[in-house]
Amino acid sequence: MEQKIKVCIFGPTGYTGGVLISALIKHPFVKIASLVSSSHKGKTFGEVFAPFRNSSLAEFILTDSPSESFDVAFLCTPHEVSLDLVPKLIASGVRVIDLSGAYRLKDPSLYPEFYGFSHSFPDLLEMSVYGLSELFRRELKAAKLVANPGCYPTATLLALAPLLNLIDSEPIIVDALSGISGAGRTPKQSFHFPEIYSNAFAYSVLWHRHRPEIELIAKSLSGREINLRFTPQVIPISRGMMVKVYLRLNLQNPFELFKDFYKNEPFVKVISRPPEISEVIDTNICVIYPFFDEKTRITQVIAVIDNLGKGASLQAVQNMNIMFNIEETTSLELPGRFI
Amino acid sequence: MEQKIKVCIFGPTGYTGGVLISALIKHPFVKIASLVSSSHKGKTFGEVFAPFRNSSLAEFILTDSPSESFDVAFLCTPHEVSLDLVPKLIASGVRVIDLSGAYRLKDPSLYPEFYGFSHSFPDLLEMSVYGLSELFRRELKAAKLVANPGCYPTATLLALAPLLNLIDSEPIIVDALSGISGAGRTPKQSFHFPEIYSNAFAYSVLWHRHRPEIELIAKSLSGREINLRFTPQVIPISRGMMVKVYLRLNLQNPFELFKDFYKNEPFVKVISRPPEISEVIDTNICVIYPFFDEKTRITQVIAVIDNLGKGASLQAVQNMNIMFNIEETTSLELPGRFI
Amino acid sequence: MEQKIKVCIFGPTGYTGGVLISALIKHPFVKIASLVSSSHKGKTFGEVFAPFRNSSLAEFILTDSPSESFDVAFLCTPHEVSLDLVPKLIASGVRVIDLSGAYRLKDPSLYPEFYGFSHSFPDLLEMSVYGLSELFRRELKAAKLVANPGCYPTATLLALAPLLNLIDSEPIIVDALSGISGAGRTPKQSFHFPEIYSNAFAYSVLWHRHRPEIELIAKSLSGREINLRFTPQVIPISRGMMVKVYLRLNLQNPFELFKDFYKNEPFVKVISRPPEISEVIDTNICVIYPFFDEKTRITQVIAVIDNLGKGASLQAVQNMNIMFNIEETTSLELPGRFI
Amino acid sequence: MEQKIKVCIFGPTGYTGGVLISALIKHPFVKIASLVSSSHKGKTFGEVFAPFRNSSLAEFILTDSPSESFDVAFLCTPHEVSLDLVPKLIASGVRVIDLSGAYRLKDPSLYPEFYGFSHSFPDLLEMSVYGLSELFRRELKAAKLVANPGCYPTATLLALAPLLNLIDSEPIIVDALSGISGAGRTPKQSFHFPEIYSNAFAYSVLWHRHRPEIELIAKSLSGREINLRFTPQVIPISRGMMVKVYLRLNLQNPFELFKDFYKNEPFVKVISRPPEISEVIDTNICVIYPFFDEKTRITQVIAVIDNLGKGASLQAVQNMNIMFNIEETTSLELPGRFI
Repeated sequence: MEQKIKVCIFGPTGYTGGVLISALIKHPFVKIASLVSSSHKGKTFGEVFAPFRNSSLAEFILTDSPSESFDVAFLCTPHEVSLDLVPKLIASGVRVIDLSGAYRLKDPSLYPEFYGFSHSFPDLLEMSVYGLSELFRRELKAAKLVANPGCYPTATLLALAPLLNLIDSEPIIVDALSGISGAGRTPKQSFHFPEIYSNAFAYSVLWHRHRPEIELIAKSLSGREINLRFTPQVIPISRGMMVKVYLRLNLQNPFELFKDFYKNEPFVKVISRPPEISEVIDTNICVIYPFFDEKTRITQVIAVIDNLGKGASLQAVQNMNIMFNIEETTSLELPGRFI
Repeated sequence: MEQKIKVCIFGPTGYTGGVLISALIKHPFVKIASLVSSSHKGKTFGEVFAPFRNSSLAEFILTDSPSESFDVAFLCTPHEVSLDLVPKLIASGVRVIDLSGAYRLKDPSLYPEFYGFSHSFPDLLEMSVYGLSELFRRELKAAKLVANPGCYPTATLLALAPLLNLIDSEPIIVDALSGISGAGRTPKQSFHFPEIYSNAFAYSVLWHRHRPEIELIAKSLSGREINLRFTPQVIPISRGMMVKVYLRLNLQNPFELFKDFYKNEPFVKVISRPPEISEVIDTNICVIYPFFDEKTRITQVIAVIDNLGKGASLQAVQNMNIMFNIEETTSLELPGRFI
Repeated sequence: MEQKIKVCIFGPTGYTGGVLISALIKHPFVKIASLVSSSHKGKTFGEVFAPFRNSSLAEFILTDSPSESFDVAFLCTPHEVSLDLVPKLIASGVRVIDLSGAYRLKDPSLYPEFYGFSHSFPDLLEMSVYGLSELFRRELKAAKLVANPGCYPTATLLALAPLLNLIDSEPIIVDALSGISGAGRTPKQSFHFPEIYSNAFAYSVLWHRHRPEIELIAKSLSGREINLRFTPQVIPISRGMMVKVYLRLNLQNPFELFKDFYKNEPFVKVISRPPEISEVIDTNICVIYPFFDEKTRITQVIAVIDNLGKGASLQAVQNMNIMFNIEETTSLELPGRFI
Repeated sequence: MEQKIKVCIFGPTGYTGGVLISALIKHPFVKIASLVSSSHKGKTFGEVFAPFRNSSLAEFILTDSPSESFDVAFLCTPHEVSLDLVPKLIASGVRVIDLSGAYRLKDPSLYPEFYGFSHSFPDLLEMSVYGLSELFRRELKAAKLVANPGCYPTATLLALAPLLNLIDSEPIIVDALSGISGAGRTPKQSFHFPEIYSNAFAYSVLWHRHRPEIELIAKSLSGREINLRFTPQVIPISRGMMVKVYLRLNLQNPFELFKDFYKNEPFVKVISRPPEISEVIDTNICVIYPFFDEKTRITQVIAVIDNLGKGASLQAVQNMNIMFNIEETTSLELPGRFI
């Protein structure tokens, strides 16, 4: 590339911001133009995040509005902040990758129930492209506004995609484990070290905003009504996610089907043994194990991702690479975390 | 009681042995007569287990055969060792509570596949009482040989029992999380601290010996063929277990059904929110959350236990209390682990 | 005892309150009369603390003032709250065990620097007995107001006590590790699970309020000025503390000296190998390893305690037992946490 | 560089091997020629290490001798294996970086006591260069055999180096914390997850082979006899190390001294607050906090490193860069682990 892509990051001081910046620092075609944070305005990035104290951005000053022009904005902001920020950014002519849920649910009527606000920008919602790179690559190339997927939806939809044409009307069971970083960087009683380090629990079992996200995207891909029984759980690890999908689908060899479906994908690995969460930490990779249980005639898929990697910030970088016509794996060729 | 029950523990130096002894030390009607361990013969118990270095058993000498007569033997030995030990003990007239799987599967033909040995004592297998206290209390009172249940079966069967009469022929999905202590005290590569502390994985997804154990007991209780899709997983906690059961069962109010079913049980709590694993550590309690999802018409049950508590050693004490006609909660009135 | 001791606990919803109550529930001579908590007034204790949901106090209602008369108050309240509460309680004729630091520093002039407030009750400060049971047992018997020691001071002073007569004017180096529960139950950024679970750090290295506490008590015992270089650190465990004391003291056999000094103490174990933190969790025991390094001629002492056990709440129970002339080990005969 | 450096790694399947390979994979001037492992001969690297299953080396076949010629060998082998391997490699004309302790102690008479073998190659020992990059950079440029330092010595010597000219004959106290990976990848009872995850302990307090390593190097730098009181401890983290050094040294402003001493060093950061272990994980950086305590007149230094980074494998890469006249930071510009 002749010229670097100038990037502005809104909300850089949370976990998704941090992982995003870790990848962008090393990206050969990116220049970080601004880090926008109203709450930490005036501080250096190194002050806010210990691991960045020794990085090239240690002395970078956070500002409360962009300090110079830019080509693309990454929004690591709360849903409500993204909701209002997107229209302004789009109006100013820049492209936007929003990591919040503000532009993910194509049906605006779901926002009051699942996000607690009415969606005021249905046109932008309509225009947004869902950033699950492997499934919407073509649309992403020209996208102005990308709604980067949630972590549970990323793993679940990649586990479901090859099967969507085969699915009937039965409900699909999705049982999912997430690391604590999925709950964000703000301290909470439940995630205070002594309370969680020997604990695990299910939450929002009848109401989690990632359920309609998965159902709507699955429906848009399959043309069928999809119904999930979705049980998210937290376990005491910092990063990582494991999703188990159970379907009543008489499919003798799901492995070959998956292998073929993802044969050209650099970030999806199909394997024939249960994956470990540790295989994917610090990567943009989703490892999938599909299998069929003769005895119960259930088709099951186990998928693991790094909730902050493929489940958030690294997929956002993959999407940027697609949007700007850069080799898709740029800055994402990570060997993964070695212990 | 006039006289204390004399107890001999075989295999006291593993995790089930340790938890068992922790409870028996405090039991007002028990005298620990012998600790039998061929591998640690001649050592003191305190030498073998750091937490017991300061206990009343610190100087207790391990022997390779019982050092005095006893009324009941607890077997915390490997399956193969229990297999051969039980006939001798029964022949000698003592009662036996076996924590291994050697006498759990009423169908001896399953042993070669699931335990790697042919069962040489079908009569004793026939005679053994399955030690899930709440479900087999009557049989336990007079039992000579108790096959103490596995951890996954304990939680799963307590979660299923109130529903067994309502179940049709559909497979039941059981997705279960276990702490690492379930894998025993012998060091293994997978459970070496640096490899597991940020990790989680499913294992034995198509073949786990607890699956037929659950299926056989459920069948014996319901009279119906029961078919499980069983996915055990390990998460990086030391103790604790969470089981999630999914059934296609149109049951509007499972909460009331469960409340009623367990209304007199001191160790089963039925609640109306997702339980936390931390609620039950160091206790003999199973906390159960049954609910119905209108949208998918699936009945779901989430149950948590301490895999070494209700899932193993404390249930063994509960069974001993039943067998010896002692108040069932004796030495099990634990407030639970406070962080 | 003919009549039970009626106990009122102020501030029962933090970690020290929780561990205290765990022990008092089992205490044969105690009746918990009131749990006073202004912030949780009207809630049940089980609502506030998951591990107590299944205990006998699950339905106990928290009140904002004592709901009935009592003999002794335990204060698990912040320093400032204890400061003002103690005079009122003493005036009302009850005995008080204060787990805060409000009445620990006999020199009131230190309070502004180390606690941020002027001490308004120097007479009560004068009257208070420092609750390090092994060192002040005689004074504790008749004490009206007990200032229960801090966790670092408990372990450090037990490690120093046998040496105090031998110490010259050289500074003593105290390097100490604490579990996260020492920082309390209120969520903090530093102790949010993802930030601390792979981390450790020193803090307050030049200013920690436990330093003058140790120095003053050591001086009162030895008659000499004691000067500490004190470096507290947090490590990612929930409970537990390890203190290492380094002295330039030419003492060939500290083991015998310590053995003799603590020969009648049920809660102090002197050993000849490095202790493990896991040996003492859930106990009131301090394990001490004193040794002499010929090469450097340094005498070193390593001591471990449970920071919430001997370092706080269980020592408070020990003190109550002493004050009320009960067998000192009552309700403290814990086998310790087995993994 | 015109031609890539061809590298052979002996013992690639342990933790030091893994971290080394993670860095070498990304190194622009390195070609990994062979991975030599007798125990895993014939397997692919991905089979042996889960995190490498998705890397470019996933299918690389391990061999029991080098599969092609090479310029430099990294030895991640046990001490005894390195001892015998080094002479053969040196004789064959390649350069060697040995991560074991086999060639670190210039005084061969120490080997029987601290390593359990007599050193059979005193000439090579004499010839070896101690690979603490910042202190022996000049010698490293032409080194044929580099004895890569131990983790404790790296952190301790970097913390001591600026003070060595000021030190008198008093013993120096070194109190150090290490993550579990320092004990290697082979499973051990002490580091089985349930035994260590809530534990910490000191070990080898009177005998640790890193003590003479530090003393000898410090003596070679200062010309004075150096005497350490060295207390290594393990804490339940996977990676990371914190060393605290205590000296009786009347030095009012150690910060400026350290700042100046390390002013041109890219991998040593001198700061004026206690460092966190999390600042340096996955980096080659040592963060040092030197300070003076007026009250006790003790100079103290706190240093943190990644025991597998600067403490082992990344320093080995730094040394290779120096030896081959490559920009020293090549492949080591890591932003560090973000949670």
